[in-house]
Amino acid sequence: MPLIRSAYQDELDGISQSLVTLSELVSGSMAQATSAILKADLKSAEEVITNDHKVDESQHDIDARIIDIIARQQPVATDLRALVSALRMGSDIERMGDLAHHVAKIARMRHPQMAVPAELIATITAMGSVAVAITQKMAVVVATRNVEMALEIERDDDTMDDLHRQLIAALLDKAWSHGTESAIDLTLLGRYYERYADHAVSVARRVYFLVKGEYA
Amino acid sequence: MPLIRSAYQDELDGISQSLVTLSELVSGSMAQATSAILKADLKSAEEVITNDHKVDESQHDIDARIIDIIARQQPVATDLRALVSALRMGSDIERMGDLAHHVAKIARMRHPQMAVPAELIATITAMGSVAVAITQKMAVVVATRNVEMALEIERDDDTMDDLHRQLIAALLDKAWSHGTESAIDLTLLGRYYERYADHAVSVARRVYFLVKGEYA
Repeated sequence: MPLIRSAYQDELDGISQSLVTLSELVSGSMAQATSAILKADLKSAEEVITNDHKVDESQHDIDARIIDIIARQQPVATDLRALVSALRMGSDIERMGDLAHHVAKIARMRHPQMAVPAELIATITAMGSVAVAITQKMAVVVATRNVEMALEIERDDDTMDDLHRQLIAALLDKAWSHGTESAIDLTLLGRYYERYADHAVSVARRVYFLVKGEYA
Repeated sequence: MPLIRSAYQDELDGISQSLVTLSELVSGSMAQATSAILKADLKSAEEVITNDHKVDESQHDIDARIIDIIARQQPVATDLRALVSALRMGSDIERMGDLAHHVAKIARMRHPQMAVPAELIATITAMGSVAVAITQKMAVVVATRNVEMALEIERDDDTMDDLHRQLIAALLDKAWSHGTESAIDLTLLGRYYERYADHAVSVARRVYFLVKGEYA
């Protein structure tokens, strides 16, 4: 049944493409949320917060299509595993969107004040850059199943963890002079960026497993 | 095919039962993690940390069984939706186990010091009690599909959010005298309990949707 098989393959490719589009949406949100938090930019923060429903709707749409494909095509073995994995990748990417949204909410809450003091601008800028770069790589990994790049994402996550440790060390330094409210904001910001990268790693590992049949 | 249908039904019931058992494991971990953090009890903290792999393994086992049922039985419509939903409930419950593990890690990191200062013991005790109660209700909801109890879990989550706000207010109070390190610990602890309850709400909503065909 080459024609049927081909239509099915098109559907699977369509799911991957939609996950890539979702990743790009989330990457844009995280870039904008980071800009909002670094510049106390209320307009950017509001845009990220308003756009979060687009991520949620897109994920629900992808989910419904995957369940519909499973019901109609009744795949087994590798194909079924790929579809279940796509469901999980959608959840991970949607959660990354939530975390960008959380970053934007801190920017909005502190506006017109800056949530990030001058001495931590470089660290948060770097965390934002790693987050965006990791999302773009994740999109390539989903699109191409490039396992080398999947492993690169694990290394990028190590960089994020190092930045997170630097951030906490700055909060614990005796020279910290910005009080408890700022320490709470930055503790949460650090956690959001760290979790964001963890979800990208989770997506990369799922692709790696689909290609290699084992975890790295 | 009453016999085949019945074997299938047994398999679905077996999945629900395993999710209940997983919930009980996680509930025990959260109770023990809370006790560890309130008493600076290293032995309890270590036990929670050591037992986290049991939660992970149990979830992987449930996942594999669900995928196997989908592959063999090729369910459509309601049954397929219930199985996909069970996959997601397993992820939520596993994540609750991770969060109990995170609470235990803070207890271990601060030992022999107390991570929770005297004036916040009551708040963290209450957060732990709500977390355990919500998990036990969640297990009943999964086992019985009781939608009234699913709605109760949403109200318990409101209580958790109130406690979380009390915690943050205490950190921001001018009388806070425990320094930044303690504020970081408590910010993270608050976040862990809050997220834990969010995942229980997510499970309750999935059950509600399966029963009612719409969200509350």
